[in-house]
Amino acid sequence: MSPADGGAAAAPGAADLGALTAELIAVPSVSGDEGALAARVAARLAAAPGETFRHGNNVVHRGPRRPGRPLVVLAGHLDTVPPQGNAAPRFADGRLYGRGASDMKSGLAVMLALAGGAGPAPPAEAARYDLAWVFYECEEVAFERNGLRRLWSELPWLAEAALAILLEPTDCAAELGCLGSLHAELTVRGRAAHSARPWLGENALYRALPLLARLAAVAPREVGVGGVTYRETLQVTTARCGGGRNVVPDAFTCNVNLRFAPTRGAEAAAAELRALAGADAEVAVVDVSPAAPPAAEHPLVAEFLARFALPRRAKQAWTDVAQFAARGVPALNFGPGVPETAHQADESVPLANLERARAVLRDFLWTAGGEGA
Amino acid sequence: MSPADGGAAAAPGAADLGALTAELIAVPSVSGDEGALAARVAARLAAAPGETFRHGNNVVHRGPRRPGRPLVVLAGHLDTVPPQGNAAPRFADGRLYGRGASDMKSGLAVMLALAGGAGPAPPAEAARYDLAWVFYECEEVAFERNGLRRLWSELPWLAEAALAILLEPTDCAAELGCLGSLHAELTVRGRAAHSARPWLGENALYRALPLLARLAAVAPREVGVGGVTYRETLQVTTARCGGGRNVVPDAFTCNVNLRFAPTRGAEAAAAELRALAGADAEVAVVDVSPAAPPAAEHPLVAEFLARFALPRRAKQAWTDVAQFAARGVPALNFGPGVPETAHQADESVPLANLERARAVLRDFLWTAGGEGA
Repeated sequence: MSPADGGAAAAPGAADLGALTAELIAVPSVSGDEGALAARVAARLAAAPGETFRHGNNVVHRGPRRPGRPLVVLAGHLDTVPPQGNAAPRFADGRLYGRGASDMKSGLAVMLALAGGAGPAPPAEAARYDLAWVFYECEEVAFERNGLRRLWSELPWLAEAALAILLEPTDCAAELGCLGSLHAELTVRGRAAHSARPWLGENALYRALPLLARLAAVAPREVGVGGVTYRETLQVTTARCGGGRNVVPDAFTCNVNLRFAPTRGAEAAAAELRALAGADAEVAVVDVSPAAPPAAEHPLVAEFLARFALPRRAKQAWTDVAQFAARGVPALNFGPGVPETAHQADESVPLANLERARAVLRDFLWTAGGEGA
Repeated sequence: MSPADGGAAAAPGAADLGALTAELIAVPSVSGDEGALAARVAARLAAAPGETFRHGNNVVHRGPRRPGRPLVVLAGHLDTVPPQGNAAPRFADGRLYGRGASDMKSGLAVMLALAGGAGPAPPAEAARYDLAWVFYECEEVAFERNGLRRLWSELPWLAEAALAILLEPTDCAAELGCLGSLHAELTVRGRAAHSARPWLGENALYRALPLLARLAAVAPREVGVGGVTYRETLQVTTARCGGGRNVVPDAFTCNVNLRFAPTRGAEAAAAELRALAGADAEVAVVDVSPAAPPAAEHPLVAEFLARFALPRRAKQAWTDVAQFAARGVPALNFGPGVPETAHQADESVPLANLERARAVLRDFLWTAGGEGA
């Protein structure tokens, strides 16, 4: 019996992965409040072979290191966006509903199962690669709070990985690279006046209308690279103006979110926005998350894509594959969650996806090519 | 020596009115926090002949009632908008600067001086009319908090007045009637989506742009009535949208302030706004303050206008003349403050205006026509 066969025989079935995902959903973990979930994950990993580290609300588990063996990292964030009446897990119609069902407690459940933190699992020392699991905090908020960020200095060996797989929701497709994301505040100035004497001022919102029309006219643009197609988008996402309801507003400020393909860097994205703003607005770049290239030619990524008949597409969002890519670690997104339901009130995951994601990863990590699914 | 001469001889000069205004500026009285100023005014009125009532932070002073004698009310609000680095009074270049210098602590100082609350003054029992002084709270905020509102039930004799003079800033002009003011919230709906997948949603701000263009195109309109000209205005004063900077906004909401002439009522103003909104927005009228007619034909108003060579114009704002007008009391605005500096960081009043305003009112109230200034 090969270790892979043994692992497969002893693995719990899809129903158990559903129960495990429901257990994780039932521990709320809105960004900044991941302590209870980190403790639950760490407790489960205590039963698994290997070492477990905790840094803040980041939990990292590592199997045995074997000289010369490439390291593969499985990574996922513990936090969710706030619940929308969907805090409690609920099974219906072959799906599991609840906050984080897709983004990404189903991915965390698969990670835990593969680590041996949820019943019998294939032994890490029988894997084709050295393995590490990274459960981290604060992915859904501003990049400076991102839990993975601090781990690069605390666990420098992470950057030596040969491959990282982010179990972000992809509906069991291989989603390559990621879009970059730039947030900028655009401010248009006017001059305040009493609203009964508007001719003494200049309405900043009215002055902003030509600029807003230009921004609204920017349609999504397809950018093909590495065999997949990204869609660049630009949206005004928040806006505010007004110092009082009797006052002609002297400033209009909006947040623009520009998602850009890995064919260009943050500077080029910022330059596009400044050109759109022209002389009409002050542009303050608030933060930038770089894009990550598809890395489809990298041998491990290529093997992953070749072995499994997975849909392959661009990651139409920003994910932490970009942090790995920035350190030279090829990375891809592959997880059971369904991206279209992420951050929605009806967030859910098909139960069949859980077992499918686990089977693909188990075969890839434990079984040499040709023996796989 | 006539009482009027005696009063004039004994009255403090313009410098004293400046000091009194500065004293009132130095007692902060932002809306909702008028207690200290109300106490100061009540203490000064304690030295004046007549009765003083206090209701909340409203202070009302009444001279002797004489059967058959018409009642004239002088009224002014105690509150100011919040300071903008101008809380402390400061004299420079023949002007007094500071929060409330124009709107309307200079008017309050003239009222106090005429009541005898700031040194010798013409005696109320020598006046041509019975006299009352109303110092009230919360004029600069939503109408439901307006201090004058509650006085109609607590002091019903106020509505028996033959004339009310509001010492709002008019730069010593007679400003007749007032504009009505309607505030409405307009909401345009969209559909939320992740900002990297905007084609799954509909940006509410973008949907609002045609409506905003229509609103911005509404220019001030002149409306002549009663020998003066009002300018109707419509302005979007505040706006907001966005539930998160990664989210295509599902709603855009703005406040529209419509100032309308006394030739039409609130219903007609609301109907105009609804027609502008059409099917693009939900319209919720938040509050309405009715307009007041010029009342230039009323005998006491006509006498006031005829006796003094005052500039005469429409009140291009809403004031509490509307509350008097709604109860059948003709009312006009006449005060030393300068409307253009009201609510501005450089709010100020020319010191010469203080004595001018007092002289006009003293002559009108104490001296029969022909003997006046």
